[in-house]
Amino acid sequence: MILTVTLNTALDLTYRVPALHPHASHRVTQVIERPGGKGLNVARVLGALGHRTVVTGFAGGPTGATVRDLLARSTAGHPVSDALVPVSGATRRTVAVVDAATGDTTQLNEPGPVISPGEWAAFTRRFTELLGEARAVALCGSLPPGIHVGAYAELVRLARAAAVPVLLDTSGEPLRRGIAARPDLIKPNAAELAQLTGSREPHDATRDARRRGAHAVVASLGRDGLLATTPDGAWQATPPAPVQGNPTGAGDSVVAALLAGLVDGTDWPTRLAHAVALSAATVLSPVAGEFDAAAYASLLPRVTVREHAAAA
Amino acid sequence: MILTVTLNTALDLTYRVPALHPHASHRVTQVIERPGGKGLNVARVLGALGHRTVVTGFAGGPTGATVRDLLARSTAGHPVSDALVPVSGATRRTVAVVDAATGDTTQLNEPGPVISPGEWAAFTRRFTELLGEARAVALCGSLPPGIHVGAYAELVRLARAAAVPVLLDTSGEPLRRGIAARPDLIKPNAAELAQLTGSREPHDATRDARRRGAHAVVASLGRDGLLATTPDGAWQATPPAPVQGNPTGAGDSVVAALLAGLVDGTDWPTRLAHAVALSAATVLSPVAGEFDAAAYASLLPRVTVREHAAAA
Repeated sequence: MILTVTLNTALDLTYRVPALHPHASHRVTQVIERPGGKGLNVARVLGALGHRTVVTGFAGGPTGATVRDLLARSTAGHPVSDALVPVSGATRRTVAVVDAATGDTTQLNEPGPVISPGEWAAFTRRFTELLGEARAVALCGSLPPGIHVGAYAELVRLARAAAVPVLLDTSGEPLRRGIAARPDLIKPNAAELAQLTGSREPHDATRDARRRGAHAVVASLGRDGLLATTPDGAWQATPPAPVQGNPTGAGDSVVAALLAGLVDGTDWPTRLAHAVALSAATVLSPVAGEFDAAAYASLLPRVTVREHAAAA
Repeated sequence: MILTVTLNTALDLTYRVPALHPHASHRVTQVIERPGGKGLNVARVLGALGHRTVVTGFAGGPTGATVRDLLARSTAGHPVSDALVPVSGATRRTVAVVDAATGDTTQLNEPGPVISPGEWAAFTRRFTELLGEARAVALCGSLPPGIHVGAYAELVRLARAAAVPVLLDTSGEPLRRGIAARPDLIKPNAAELAQLTGSREPHDATRDARRRGAHAVVASLGRDGLLATTPDGAWQATPPAPVQGNPTGAGDSVVAALLAGLVDGTDWPTRLAHAVALSAATVLSPVAGEFDAAAYASLLPRVTVREHAAAA
């Protein structure tokens, strides 16, 4: 199975309002509730692709119970197994307020519950057990309050000790610390990569990220697709045309495709083509975080993958 | 006991953000959860004043369970008894986003669960039972989806048939229909009164509202205090000075004071003085919907109550 870790799971709420006016009162016309946090989104996409996936991380309080209930009721593809660790605090909510007039989204993210040292210890025990069955693991998203900033570095080391390939998808100081523990793969976007390396030039920045400890780097460059710098070479994969839609979850679909390629043992150009097509198919789906299966199939053969001479 | 009805209860969330920028992402720095809906707020204030209070209405889903749990854990004063009727839908959330830079609030209100005819019938049975023990009843707030617009008129008639004095605090068409059933008291604000009567002149409008069926009308006029038009006379009660603070819950405190005065059998000038002082003490409290007990005591003797010759 593929294991995904979401330390700061969320109950994602999407509120549609006719138009957002600061300091006014709004009647929400539509409410959508989804289990959230990057690792849960990645797992749902993997499940839809037919992969056996287990999610772990933390869940607590009534919001955590709702997240687990929604996760159990997800029906598309292979069901996602819930190995979340209970905590005394309540799982955070995130609220995406969609302005129906403009289509723009205003995001409000609760910080999440404070994790105690005992809860963190319980999690690392569970994580170590789960690694015994995992063919790959993804560590996804922000750290909730109370967890030390080197937490991902600790988890990367545990995965490497268990010989399980590990993908790290986070940002800021947790990414910087995590890279030093030598994850197999990181997937920063352009802003995260620039923050990490100080360079806005993607080729320089991805090479710099490898020198910092990541075995392979797949940078998501928005409309320019993906730039991969790996021990086997460097490639850029681009969609046939820019796609219009809701970019929520596009990065999580890239992570899902890269994990699927890793466990299936496909070569880098194939993995990257799948990742670009799945990401574009996610942008095209009317439902945030889901992908349009027909678009995925039709885009896949039309993704361009170009090898770069200036490899690692 | 005093009975309050909240057909559209809510889990009230207050999110503090450094500054609200539409279409940006925000980290919420503080989250406060409270049981909400006007009748629940009125009951909490009555409990803090030492009155035995029972709440009814609807609650459902994980959010409804949280509302009931928070209600049970409220500790100030007399505990509020929970006689909420379970429904299959989930109780709505409201989100108040407080901009820490300006102090302004942006409000997002979910619509609430759809109430089925069977759930409405179960509620009216429970309401009728509870009336047997009630010395006064307040019908508060908006109607959730699925409930007929004449619902408050139906409840006013049930209360009158049981000889229980009934206060109606709602707006729009439910208020218009409810008044026709002859409630003992309505408490509109200036905007609700103007919408009901078409007149922005408070004396004319309150007299008009009485002609439409309300035995007594207490209009809340913001800084101008309260204007009461009753079978016993007309009065205006004003605070000693305008108060600065959070007006959330000020209207609910007026309702609580009017109900307390009704069951205590005090005269109108005394009731109005208490209502104005309690309302101002609510604005002065740093916590939305709670009142500053010291301010209440100090303001009470300084409220001005003036009788109007142009009475009913």
